[in-house]
Amino acid sequence: MATMQQVADRAGVSIATVSFVVNGTKYVTPATTARVEAAMRELKFRGNLVARALASRRTRIIALLFPTVGNRFSPTTSEFFMSAAERASQRGYHLVLWPVDPAGEDLDDLVSGGLVDGVVLMEVRMDDPRVRKLSELDVPFTLIGRTRDSSDLPFVDIDFETTIEDSLDHLQGLGHRRFGLVLENLEGTPMAGYAPHLRVEDTFRRSVAARGAVGTVVYAGAGSEGGREAARALLDADPEVSGVLVMKDDSSAGLLVGLSAAGRRVPDDVSVLSIASSGTAGDQHHPRLTTMVAPGRELGERAADALIDQLDGASEGKPHFLLPCVLRPAESVAAAPTGATA
Amino acid sequence: MATMQQVADRAGVSIATVSFVVNGTKYVTPATTARVEAAMRELKFRGNLVARALASRRTRIIALLFPTVGNRFSPTTSEFFMSAAERASQRGYHLVLWPVDPAGEDLDDLVSGGLVDGVVLMEVRMDDPRVRKLSELDVPFTLIGRTRDSSDLPFVDIDFETTIEDSLDHLQGLGHRRFGLVLENLEGTPMAGYAPHLRVEDTFRRSVAARGAVGTVVYAGAGSEGGREAARALLDADPEVSGVLVMKDDSSAGLLVGLSAAGRRVPDDVSVLSIASSGTAGDQHHPRLTTMVAPGRELGERAADALIDQLDGASEGKPHFLLPCVLRPAESVAAAPTGATA
Repeated sequence: MATMQQVADRAGVSIATVSFVVNGTKYVTPATTARVEAAMRELKFRGNLVARALASRRTRIIALLFPTVGNRFSPTTSEFFMSAAERASQRGYHLVLWPVDPAGEDLDDLVSGGLVDGVVLMEVRMDDPRVRKLSELDVPFTLIGRTRDSSDLPFVDIDFETTIEDSLDHLQGLGHRRFGLVLENLEGTPMAGYAPHLRVEDTFRRSVAARGAVGTVVYAGAGSEGGREAARALLDADPEVSGVLVMKDDSSAGLLVGLSAAGRRVPDDVSVLSIASSGTAGDQHHPRLTTMVAPGRELGERAADALIDQLDGASEGKPHFLLPCVLRPAESVAAAPTGATA
Repeated sequence: MATMQQVADRAGVSIATVSFVVNGTKYVTPATTARVEAAMRELKFRGNLVARALASRRTRIIALLFPTVGNRFSPTTSEFFMSAAERASQRGYHLVLWPVDPAGEDLDDLVSGGLVDGVVLMEVRMDDPRVRKLSELDVPFTLIGRTRDSSDLPFVDIDFETTIEDSLDHLQGLGHRRFGLVLENLEGTPMAGYAPHLRVEDTFRRSVAARGAVGTVVYAGAGSEGGREAARALLDADPEVSGVLVMKDDSSAGLLVGLSAAGRRVPDDVSVLSIASSGTAGDQHHPRLTTMVAPGRELGERAADALIDQLDGASEGKPHFLLPCVLRPAESVAAAPTGATA
């Protein structure tokens, strides 16, 4: 595809003049306009994307929808975004991050406006009004995440169920029998009903019961302070808890500090396993956090592929793709303290 | 989706009148406008944004350009993005995050395509080819950041010069005379020449010299490991360093661990001051990092305003807006150890 510079060179004009002709932003003499248009034709310069979009009803732009509330940009979010954008680019699409209201009120404008060919939705809740909206709007879409019943929807997601089973297997193999789970409290926020939390909590409770073990679930406030509170709440509920899963990057540090303040050494007294975090986030802690690493890059690519396959007519089905997190050992998990019992 | 004809029929007006209401191209009485809008609501008619864009040459979409290389999404980046997006929304625009090649090769397509009305550029380098491209392309733009000479460009930026002077004043007031500065090593990457680093290093060197103090600059690798290396390199160069500035969120934890591994207590032996970070990132460390907090939210809003003022014809000038970071005391800075001398 020719660039504007090549058109300018061919026509013997400045790049600004080409821009004026293409966008009609300034008067250009008919003779010069004709010369620029001839150069555009010869070089197959594709002209104005908007005009072309109107003709073809395609812009080759896809939007990754991200909620406008709070500040939910974690290292894993960033991996989803960057890898999906790279994959889209390889396939001739441009992916942009598009902030939308969690209630879905502004989806109509975006989609019916024809500016994007399709959308990827992330940060999905169990009963997500945006998913209903997208289904009604008849626009190609794919989820990173799942609603309560996603059997009819195309999605890629972390396999949280397997991830939690694997996490508990790992800790149980090291002798742990008293487990804790720390999640972020989103009650009363627009992100209430965040599907990963509900799946993780549900799997944790069922699996701990099936193992005949003890489990405590704590919902923490945001940030480091929330992590400190979580440590106190966990130890209040079960002073002998020895294997703790935490799924909240910005609370992990507070959790470590809170455990230490309560006289618990990590990992000698309490093991801490970070869930669905990025590969390197855990290195920022002391001790470095053993992590079940989220497959952010692969899921981002798969999400882009799933949507673009739809757009290009390369697939008719609704892909359902689940991938569990993978254990990355570091310094925060060890054998249960001797004498620990359930 | 309903057609304009259906809206016209429902409202009992001509199709031209519907068009005037939709596009605001001609005066329509309030009563008629209300009738047309009611019909549009009932029929879920939204007009066609693309068609409207072609007619008006406006899409009311603005793009925040972000480099596709590496993973540079820090908490401060996220603040810029979210606050700029909110401000744009308040003013009737939609801001999207648009990944672009750092060399600027793909800017032509984005801009000449007419899909966005204007752009905000961030992660600016001293000699940034994207800025030259945007200037040539005749598209409204604003920078978050500055090139070497930005006197002719509209920008908002952190006042790094004042931030560094204030940081050194604060430490010097506590008796520190041997300073360190930790920056990320971007040599050989597409982000080489990253303007904030060069400004910070330059100001640091000049200011330390003017104070008759001792200063050591260390360029660290990425992540926690880079922070540990930085601690070793700093102490090798100046074993008595006591006041350290770090401008790299993901290396701060490693720096603390590295100092501790070398037998230095923070803040008793060495004070650590985090520069241009977000208000809460420092709370994730132990001790909590004293931080010169980046005015991310205000700069994001100012950037959106500066661009939208241009687009709406509300300003003719090129705003130059600088705001320093503000000290947020926490636990990592204290008086210099007694006996410390330059």
